[in-house]
Amino acid sequence: MRDPNNVFHLAIPARDLDETYDFYVTKLGCKLARRYADRITLDFFGDQVVCHLSDHFDRDVNMYPRHFGITFRDKRQFDNLYKLAKQRELPFFQDLSKRFQGMIEEHEMFFLRDPSNNLLEFKYYYDDRMMY
Amino acid sequence: MRDPNNVFHLAIPARDLDETYDFYVTKLGCKLARRYADRITLDFFGDQVVCHLSDHFDRDVNMYPRHFGITFRDKRQFDNLYKLAKQRELPFFQDLSKRFQGMIEEHEMFFLRDPSNNLLEFKYYYDDRMMY
Amino acid sequence: MRDPNNVFHLAIPARDLDETYDFYVTKLGCKLARRYADRITLDFFGDQVVCHLSDHFDRDVNMYPRHFGITFRDKRQFDNLYKLAKQRELPFFQDLSKRFQGMIEEHEMFFLRDPSNNLLEFKYYYDDRMMY
Amino acid sequence: MRDPNNVFHLAIPARDLDETYDFYVTKLGCKLARRYADRITLDFFGDQVVCHLSDHFDRDVNMYPRHFGITFRDKRQFDNLYKLAKQRELPFFQDLSKRFQGMIEEHEMFFLRDPSNNLLEFKYYYDDRMMY
Amino acid sequence: MRDPNNVFHLAIPARDLDETYDFYVTKLGCKLARRYADRITLDFFGDQVVCHLSDHFDRDVNMYPRHFGITFRDKRQFDNLYKLAKQRELPFFQDLSKRFQGMIEEHEMFFLRDPSNNLLEFKYYYDDRMMY
Amino acid sequence: MRDPNNVFHLAIPARDLDETYDFYVTKLGCKLARRYADRITLDFFGDQVVCHLSDHFDRDVNMYPRHFGITFRDKRQFDNLYKLAKQRELPFFQDLSKRFQGMIEEHEMFFLRDPSNNLLEFKYYYDDRMMY
Amino acid sequence: MRDPNNVFHLAIPARDLDETYDFYVTKLGCKLARRYADRITLDFFGDQVVCHLSDHFDRDVNMYPRHFGITFRDKRQFDNLYKLAKQRELPFFQDLSKRFQGMIEEHEMFFLRDPSNNLLEFKYYYDDRMMY
Amino acid sequence: MRDPNNVFHLAIPARDLDETYDFYVTKLGCKLARRYADRITLDFFGDQVVCHLSDHFDRDVNMYPRHFGITFRDKRQFDNLYKLAKQRELPFFQDLSKRFQGMIEEHEMFFLRDPSNNLLEFKYYYDDRMMY
Repeated sequence: MRDPNNVFHLAIPARDLDETYDFYVTKLGCKLARRYADRITLDFFGDQVVCHLSDHFDRDVNMYPRHFGITFRDKRQFDNLYKLAKQRELPFFQDLSKRFQGMIEEHEMFFLRDPSNNLLEFKYYYDDRMMY
Repeated sequence: MRDPNNVFHLAIPARDLDETYDFYVTKLGCKLARRYADRITLDFFGDQVVCHLSDHFDRDVNMYPRHFGITFRDKRQFDNLYKLAKQRELPFFQDLSKRFQGMIEEHEMFFLRDPSNNLLEFKYYYDDRMMY
Repeated sequence: MRDPNNVFHLAIPARDLDETYDFYVTKLGCKLARRYADRITLDFFGDQVVCHLSDHFDRDVNMYPRHFGITFRDKRQFDNLYKLAKQRELPFFQDLSKRFQGMIEEHEMFFLRDPSNNLLEFKYYYDDRMMY
Repeated sequence: MRDPNNVFHLAIPARDLDETYDFYVTKLGCKLARRYADRITLDFFGDQVVCHLSDHFDRDVNMYPRHFGITFRDKRQFDNLYKLAKQRELPFFQDLSKRFQGMIEEHEMFFLRDPSNNLLEFKYYYDDRMMY
Repeated sequence: MRDPNNVFHLAIPARDLDETYDFYVTKLGCKLARRYADRITLDFFGDQVVCHLSDHFDRDVNMYPRHFGITFRDKRQFDNLYKLAKQRELPFFQDLSKRFQGMIEEHEMFFLRDPSNNLLEFKYYYDDRMMY
Repeated sequence: MRDPNNVFHLAIPARDLDETYDFYVTKLGCKLARRYADRITLDFFGDQVVCHLSDHFDRDVNMYPRHFGITFRDKRQFDNLYKLAKQRELPFFQDLSKRFQGMIEEHEMFFLRDPSNNLLEFKYYYDDRMMY
Repeated sequence: MRDPNNVFHLAIPARDLDETYDFYVTKLGCKLARRYADRITLDFFGDQVVCHLSDHFDRDVNMYPRHFGITFRDKRQFDNLYKLAKQRELPFFQDLSKRFQGMIEEHEMFFLRDPSNNLLEFKYYYDDRMMY
Repeated sequence: MRDPNNVFHLAIPARDLDETYDFYVTKLGCKLARRYADRITLDFFGDQVVCHLSDHFDRDVNMYPRHFGITFRDKRQFDNLYKLAKQRELPFFQDLSKRFQGMIEEHEMFFLRDPSNNLLEFKYYYDDRMMY
């Protein structure tokens, strides 16, 4: 179990703050902590993601080596997020899929793509020890 | 307070897994969760960082738009980490500094650089509401 | 997750303290913290509601813009409270209903009316991220 | 100790959503959960406050019978909030004061006024049993 | 939710420490914290019960006005304790029964009698708000 | 650490419910959960105490073998309660005293007497392992 | 409930650190905290196990008097671990078995043997009070 | 942070159960969970230690490769335990000492020896990340 008092923070590029706000706050349902002229800071599922206005975003999208997201311990939270992503038509980079079926490492995951080509991966493991 | 049961996960590039292991496990004191031929997965202060062997690491280092790290609620944890970084001679990208002195946003921070030019920022805010 | 150590407090008007006591403590099952000549303070589901004897209560009742209540994470607590309200014949302003069926925002809710025309809304969301 | 999983929610009137956003998000540092044409929902210190665009706000301001806020268990959080309110020049309805000095009920408190004349009271009790 | 750090303590009479030990530790499965010549202190389901060797125990047993026990939030813990009491043939003062069936106050309970005629009541409420 | 979800409950005699209410709620600051014609149920520092109207109260008061109370882990809570008891002139059976000074069992304690001659003991141990 | 902040630590002999690493980290899925020339320290299900390179390991294996392991409160964690042990073909000293069927002490358990003949026992009790 | 719901269990040899009881329960202040003819089970600082009557105890005592104990996060708990060990004249194998002074790995520790020559190590690290 991680410490509930600390916060992981991640800074990523955003090519436009309005579409970033639309993706993360309006659609994905993250909370907006602060908005400045050059960045948006988000309460991203309890951690912090800062979207910096920048020209250094990826022009093409690759799953590796960079992506980020949340691994849920509660399957219902994972399922609800997938349902939200479908209903609100968030852009999927890879739809829901299962990996390592029947193995102890079995998990479900899907990838979203934000407007600046950052990839978000959400996962659920059947064995919570496999989360790391 | 974030949910202690979930885990933030971040995938980053690593140009060499041995030096990555040395930086994160031996020096920074993160726990090694798994090691494969093409990646290392870490328990990074309770969250997960996956270092993928990759040629797509940054050749030069910039603070923006990409970096990641932990914001501590307990100053002692922050101070201990700084002391560790100094004693074990981890490469600093920016040494300990204070920002917004006297303001409510006042915080202390420092930046480390891993062997693949990923930047790690560690922070402590005097007002914990400013962590986001 | 909110901080279990802090308390939200809300002050509302009460036209009569005896009927207020009867509604909140005897019927709704809140705990009485203190009673003075001019007010009653309640442990209202873990937060604090203070009912001030006052002539400034609403003469007619409207759902907007003022009401308050609890959003439960556990459906059983929500269902139990609804059952209590029915059995003890608390005055409903709006009976149990579902909103946004099939949508990610789907939730169940009902409204009670206290003797001073304050409206209490209790809710349960199928996706706990929608609680805010 | 209250249940960290549930959320207190409060609906209040707002005469203008932009100035409401400015007061609660930009200045007071609450997180924005959602914004619609007719309301803003806030993560207000872990609970939920919904500001409904409405003409039914108070024209004049009185401490009783209606106000709301947070009672902190940790004096540092209370002190930091007061410092923030002063630095960011939030409108005070009543500045920092002590009540019941020397008594077990002794506490510090201050009142802010939002742009729609809603009053916010923040408190700190020296004896945490007095929080209710 | 009560504070996990504090402990309720209760002192009761015991006419004989060996039979008291046998009842509470060997049969009921409480942990022995300390044993002195004149008393036994127990970790009784997380709280403290001290059994003082004394001639002032009750000669006849009445349900009122004195008894003590635990109200469980988790039905499985309640059911397991009842099963233990049956299997280990602890003396029942009142066997498992339901009260207020169909009402919001509905609960299950049973009474045990210790060797010094102290009565122990264990309860489970279907609505956890009724535990007080 | 005890389970925050369960509740210890204790039933004690009360010779008069009004004076019992005055002692426990008005003076000692416990929360009233319910009041019936023949009993009062209290949220007593997070656990439950039920005061049954009864003629079987103790005519004279002895420290042994029966008393009850709370052992605090936080000295400030203990000190605050003592201050409250003094200010509100609760009847002491034994004033603040230290036992086992210099020993690992060292603790501070005081005894109050309720209107029905039930004794309440409140304690603080310097070594929290000695709480049992 | 035990204190989540403290750590149980156990030092055991290891005849070879590479095979020890393979057993505990690669197969059993424990996290490696540190590796020195003469020992490996592990985050063993949240506690600490230190494997010291030593010639004093057991030549033959006996269940008594020495073994160690985890007793899980959540059956799913126990079942997942058993599944992992089977899939990854960890050496069993005793396969899954039930003890005290129908009794309150009923539990499931299995024994693994590490490369240095240390025995690991994992257990699940149907009644969590029997964990001690 | 480890999971408060699980329990580490350790089985060790005891050459005599009465002296084992005296060492662990009477002197060290552990709670006795159960006593059988051939073993004693203890609540050892929240985890479980089982002392099996056995002839396979160590005839001579060595610090490596076998010992066990608790690493405390709170220095006061560590200091209190040391004070208890001194006052109750528990047999020390190594008195209080500091290791790695000035280094990030700095910690205090002492070793006790139980009557069956099992060694118990208790530790406190100034940087809690070094606990593993």
